[in-house]
Amino acid sequence: MRYFLGIVVLAVFAGSAAADPLPSWQDGETKSRIIDFVSDVTNPGSDNYVTPPDRIAVFDNDGTLWSEKPVYFQLLYALDRLEEMAAKDPTILSSDVLKAAAAGDMDRVAKSGEEGLLEIVMVSHSGLSVPEFQADVARWIETARHPTKNLAYTDMTYQPMLELLRYLRDEGFETYLVSGGGIHFMRAFVEAAYGVPPENVIGSAGKTRYEVVDGVPTILKDPGIAFIDDKAGKPIGIDSKIGKRPIFIGGNSDGDFEMLEWATAGDGPSLGLIVHHTDGEREWAYDRDSHVGKLVRGLDEADARGWLLVDMAEDWKRVWSGSSN
Amino acid sequence: MRYFLGIVVLAVFAGSAAADPLPSWQDGETKSRIIDFVSDVTNPGSDNYVTPPDRIAVFDNDGTLWSEKPVYFQLLYALDRLEEMAAKDPTILSSDVLKAAAAGDMDRVAKSGEEGLLEIVMVSHSGLSVPEFQADVARWIETARHPTKNLAYTDMTYQPMLELLRYLRDEGFETYLVSGGGIHFMRAFVEAAYGVPPENVIGSAGKTRYEVVDGVPTILKDPGIAFIDDKAGKPIGIDSKIGKRPIFIGGNSDGDFEMLEWATAGDGPSLGLIVHHTDGEREWAYDRDSHVGKLVRGLDEADARGWLLVDMAEDWKRVWSGSSN
Repeated sequence: MRYFLGIVVLAVFAGSAAADPLPSWQDGETKSRIIDFVSDVTNPGSDNYVTPPDRIAVFDNDGTLWSEKPVYFQLLYALDRLEEMAAKDPTILSSDVLKAAAAGDMDRVAKSGEEGLLEIVMVSHSGLSVPEFQADVARWIETARHPTKNLAYTDMTYQPMLELLRYLRDEGFETYLVSGGGIHFMRAFVEAAYGVPPENVIGSAGKTRYEVVDGVPTILKDPGIAFIDDKAGKPIGIDSKIGKRPIFIGGNSDGDFEMLEWATAGDGPSLGLIVHHTDGEREWAYDRDSHVGKLVRGLDEADARGWLLVDMAEDWKRVWSGSSN
Repeated sequence: MRYFLGIVVLAVFAGSAAADPLPSWQDGETKSRIIDFVSDVTNPGSDNYVTPPDRIAVFDNDGTLWSEKPVYFQLLYALDRLEEMAAKDPTILSSDVLKAAAAGDMDRVAKSGEEGLLEIVMVSHSGLSVPEFQADVARWIETARHPTKNLAYTDMTYQPMLELLRYLRDEGFETYLVSGGGIHFMRAFVEAAYGVPPENVIGSAGKTRYEVVDGVPTILKDPGIAFIDDKAGKPIGIDSKIGKRPIFIGGNSDGDFEMLEWATAGDGPSLGLIVHHTDGEREWAYDRDSHVGKLVRGLDEADARGWLLVDMAEDWKRVWSGSSN
């Protein structure tokens, strides 16, 4: 009986080792480079072996793990929430850009630039406790649909990247998000969507305040920005929250450049990866001229720096997790 | 042979289950409350069962996991470093308090208040890259000795608390530091001293800057404070970095009050613990009137709030990890 059990166990292990960890990636150079890197750093006999505590993998979110068109999904949430808030109290729309946002006037919002976007996010994301806010985001994520694709937003996560996250965790990596998106917004859905727990979310953060409200100790979301996790903010955020240099780094825009530059400059092995949006048929094709997810330096310098450019059209058999194409 | 191996394995497990996880704690109510709490929340049959991902334990550092007299050890490091910096470049001593600090005039430093201390920390902790700074702290921790006890600082960590950290981790808890001390300072030694990895360190933080210096991507420590992890800053820091409410909370001063208040106010089970410095013979006895580690509200309200007051003189068989008493 014991002998028989032994055979069963071996068969199961052999089966799992032979299975393709990245079934939605086309066989070819891109996929091979990922698997070769992971096999190398997890092989105790390799010069590039990395012990599990130092197997840190970081990923941008918008445009890297899910879509970001026509604008960041968090902005679409902000507009919906602003409309609801204004229905209860129209006086919160204290500026032209807030009025345009609540009316869904995207042209006017887009023209307001970064300053206008920050105002929209600050007003729409404050005034609730953290648990209330996250419950509101969770409800929105559950019910809202993308304006042109009509898919739930969590169905617009990238199936190949979900497989990559799981593959890395299976190989002893700790996976983190390092996103310009807000920490409280992301924490409402990333564990279910990506298997990334709340403590592994690094992101932009609004100001918060601790207060005992009617006897209940509460953390309240205030207006105002505490940290912007973009560009040079990304290595700074990683240093502040993790305190280690990641060895696997995924991004898609020049907002990820400094994170890739810093993390791939260490002495040890590292793999930097840029998701290049080349697929205008299944998703959107954009890079140098896009307002959202602009990619110029990353495209120009990826080869020289040894970063892996992922060609979505060529390298991915399938794009979204919740759609068949 | 297989049968024989089975017996050996069982014997080892039985032995480890019967062993006392907290041998340096006196048997009695304090120790029982800790063990009862941990047994309860890790028992799948209990109404208070908590799944491993939510077994979050947080600990203050100064006065909770190691001593803090005559002043926070980080300040002693700052004074030593300031003296070294001034020997190379006396012009950095641009104020009276900096001059007093470099000369080791503790009275004058103490009288400068919080503003003076911040100035000392900011000047002494900036101008290096993060890895350079951490290497300097590691060298100091290795070589420096306490001014009156003549012990290495890491020998002044509390043996009973080291056992508690290990016990919690053995029972599936994730252990974090939540300290007013600086993140880069603590990361230089806490993994070796406490088994707490860099990513589980929450603390105060100076400003940092990302820059490519002579072709090398570098994170530099700047003067200026980015975050003070004390009082209401502690629940805010925990929310920002972990995003979960801890269920085991250890502190020793009123700087930990809000963290204890917030974390023990949840619906689920929680245990708040305050290390009370009652042992003037083996360590130092202080609470209400101490400049460092002042404890007033915590002492007055612990009973009513159900927090466990640890009486160092009564509850601990031994105090320091690197000393026999």
